[in-house]
Amino acid sequence: MKKTTLLALLFLGGVSVFAQKTDEQVLKEIYKQALTNSNSYAWLDHLSNDIGARLSGSANAEKAVQYTKSEMEKLGFDKVYLQEVMVPKWVRGAKETAYILDNKTKINVPICALGGSIATASTGLTAEVIEVHSLEELKKLGIDKIKGKIVFFNRPMDNEQIESFHAYSGAVDQRYAGAKEASYFGAVGTIVRSMNLRLDDFPHTGAQSYGDIPKSQYIPTAAISTNGAELLSKTLKTNPELKFYFKQSCQQFADVMSYNVIGEIKGTVTPDNIMVVGGHLDSWDLADGSQDDGAGVVQSMDVANIFRKIGYKPKNTIRVVLFMNEENGLRGGNKYEELSLKNNENHIFALESDSGGFSPRGFSLECDAANFNQIAGFNTLFEPYLIHSFVEGHSGSDIGPLTSSKIVKAGLKPDSQRYFDYHHAANDKFDAVDKRELELGAGTMASLMYLMDQRGIIK
Amino acid sequence: MKKTTLLALLFLGGVSVFAQKTDEQVLKEIYKQALTNSNSYAWLDHLSNDIGARLSGSANAEKAVQYTKSEMEKLGFDKVYLQEVMVPKWVRGAKETAYILDNKTKINVPICALGGSIATASTGLTAEVIEVHSLEELKKLGIDKIKGKIVFFNRPMDNEQIESFHAYSGAVDQRYAGAKEASYFGAVGTIVRSMNLRLDDFPHTGAQSYGDIPKSQYIPTAAISTNGAELLSKTLKTNPELKFYFKQSCQQFADVMSYNVIGEIKGTVTPDNIMVVGGHLDSWDLADGSQDDGAGVVQSMDVANIFRKIGYKPKNTIRVVLFMNEENGLRGGNKYEELSLKNNENHIFALESDSGGFSPRGFSLECDAANFNQIAGFNTLFEPYLIHSFVEGHSGSDIGPLTSSKIVKAGLKPDSQRYFDYHHAANDKFDAVDKRELELGAGTMASLMYLMDQRGIIK
Repeated sequence: MKKTTLLALLFLGGVSVFAQKTDEQVLKEIYKQALTNSNSYAWLDHLSNDIGARLSGSANAEKAVQYTKSEMEKLGFDKVYLQEVMVPKWVRGAKETAYILDNKTKINVPICALGGSIATASTGLTAEVIEVHSLEELKKLGIDKIKGKIVFFNRPMDNEQIESFHAYSGAVDQRYAGAKEASYFGAVGTIVRSMNLRLDDFPHTGAQSYGDIPKSQYIPTAAISTNGAELLSKTLKTNPELKFYFKQSCQQFADVMSYNVIGEIKGTVTPDNIMVVGGHLDSWDLADGSQDDGAGVVQSMDVANIFRKIGYKPKNTIRVVLFMNEENGLRGGNKYEELSLKNNENHIFALESDSGGFSPRGFSLECDAANFNQIAGFNTLFEPYLIHSFVEGHSGSDIGPLTSSKIVKAGLKPDSQRYFDYHHAANDKFDAVDKRELELGAGTMASLMYLMDQRGIIK
Repeated sequence: MKKTTLLALLFLGGVSVFAQKTDEQVLKEIYKQALTNSNSYAWLDHLSNDIGARLSGSANAEKAVQYTKSEMEKLGFDKVYLQEVMVPKWVRGAKETAYILDNKTKINVPICALGGSIATASTGLTAEVIEVHSLEELKKLGIDKIKGKIVFFNRPMDNEQIESFHAYSGAVDQRYAGAKEASYFGAVGTIVRSMNLRLDDFPHTGAQSYGDIPKSQYIPTAAISTNGAELLSKTLKTNPELKFYFKQSCQQFADVMSYNVIGEIKGTVTPDNIMVVGGHLDSWDLADGSQDDGAGVVQSMDVANIFRKIGYKPKNTIRVVLFMNEENGLRGGNKYEELSLKNNENHIFALESDSGGFSPRGFSLECDAANFNQIAGFNTLFEPYLIHSFVEGHSGSDIGPLTSSKIVKAGLKPDSQRYFDYHHAANDKFDAVDKRELELGAGTMASLMYLMDQRGIIK
């Protein structure tokens, strides 16, 4: 009895401290913490520079699980735990080689195998090339023109798009489904122009899928740098009979055990209402994945860190979820939802940061009009922090599977112009992330989590 | 007569093409040109990588004058001309050296002379150090504590500020006036913490002024990197008697002739109304000045380029002005205004880009309420291009002297978080600028120039 009274007093004390503050004051404290007392950059330094690339199923991914778990255990969560999830294990193997064989001249070009691709023969693959700009064009050409050749998908991302993610979604079908589609017509391999808005020498990897075609029909597929694609296209114009050689030795192994890493703060008022904030812990294997999605991971951890430092006890249960395997399977997001359903959990809100750690500019929202209007109504609170953009759109892949009936989902929307300079390429390293931009993102996420915790969702 | 009629027809034809278009359509064309058909990145490449640092009075500044003049001559201006202006010529000389002498241990630290500083003796300067955090603190300490010492100004830029320019203006008095103020109290030199929000090893130069003190009282002044400042401060705490050594061999020469570069498109309707768009051609001497202000220069040139490509003939006269000597004298801006007054010119609008080539986010406006409201009312036109911020504030240093009675002035407001990572330091190089960010800035400037040309200012 005594203990309960004491807890009640403490609890009421906690509430009253924050009840006395305006939202303006709390956001000011949040951003101050984010910009002067954040751990996010130090965590990212470790994830990027001490651990490095974290492809699902790799030893580094496991290290990242253990590291973030142990760091989260220092943040005063009510519990920190791992959620088991089986993930694919694909290994790139030796660095790929490729060249254009223009008559007798060999011109080396930078390529990388796409995630999930099979290897070429150990001696490599040489064939004539047919350039196409869409899956539709491929189908029009048909088996006669394609059989025995390497299909070269060369539709660039559209620079006219203002949002670089729109340019990405307008081109990525070539990468994701190109090999499967080309295989139908007897192609022996595919080479895809990297998903990159600028011209440079980095090949960009990423997921591809053979879909439901028989394994015997799988063909090797690789990305070529944008400069390489320009050169290949130009050379094809003068010599349509040129040959292309590439060699890659990637392998798909059996699935292995991995984990989502979860930290939970029990809600003080409605603990059965769960709010998720997260990013994905895995990255591609060519670099540290500092932007994709080391930034989102450490920003999500920082939300809990900031709440603790300003002494904020959320009304609803808050979970920081570091999802595994966003890049090539989404197994972590699916597993989280599977267990949520099994446990009859009630998720009311989820926020993901998986668009890079650049200057935050707003949120992309998936919800009904009433909830959209509530969040868009936060604009005056956010204006001093240069957050102006509240739009309908994709929130995040990892929180995509969450299906609670009235859940509101949001994605942090940072400035996107540089994102595809680094996305899935060897330059997605620590120095691509700016400390203040990263921290402003963490402050922006903590602010939205606070406001949603205070207001709740509109049912 | 015939000729006049023909011209009138051509002119009306020109107007009617654009009169048939909505502002939305014109802005779409402008941004399309900016993102797919711009010259700004190629110009910047040349300015940065082929010419390089362009301090006023240097051979490179002269090369930049000739290069931009010759490039502007290809853009269909009615005239391109140079405006003579005498500029200061300060030369850094040999690379500076500095160390902390902690008992017998020498610890090297990165410094650079501030612009306009005198040299140390050729053997360098060694003295005890007194750390202060403001000009006020310096005055409180007084001559007894300061005489014979090096004053170390170590108030950091305030990371709590959301706008990095606010953090800059809150700290830069130490750099600009520190030496003059310290000299009053008998200091023998000053060392100033670099104007940089992050901790790194780059010293950041910048203008300083001895004001009206006699030349005999000038003392050498230099910037130290933020890491160096942290180390010096920490070492002072354990050893207040440590000594600091630095050596610099900079020299001030007599003024030399230089130029503003101007391209003019004569207005079709009200040619006596002049609208300026510009940036500054000079840079500091430690790097290419790609962000400060190569970006503003090429974006301003691109405004004319974009108008030409979409066939837009402005109603008012438009001048692209590449100002000389913003960094250490503002002679170009002052000369431009002097001649404008002399020639009885009527400037109605001026737009400057001198806050870096990062993603544009809005405009900082100097005008009365009616004109502010007109420009802020463009927000829905700009929203598809992610331009959300219309605020009152400083427009640009070079257009500062313009005094026409009802002139409206605007500054392009890019994302500012990374700006002071590079500002006046050796890393302000071409690779700090992102092509799309630069181009979006050019599109945003061209769009505002178009809208202001259409609507005029409110008198």
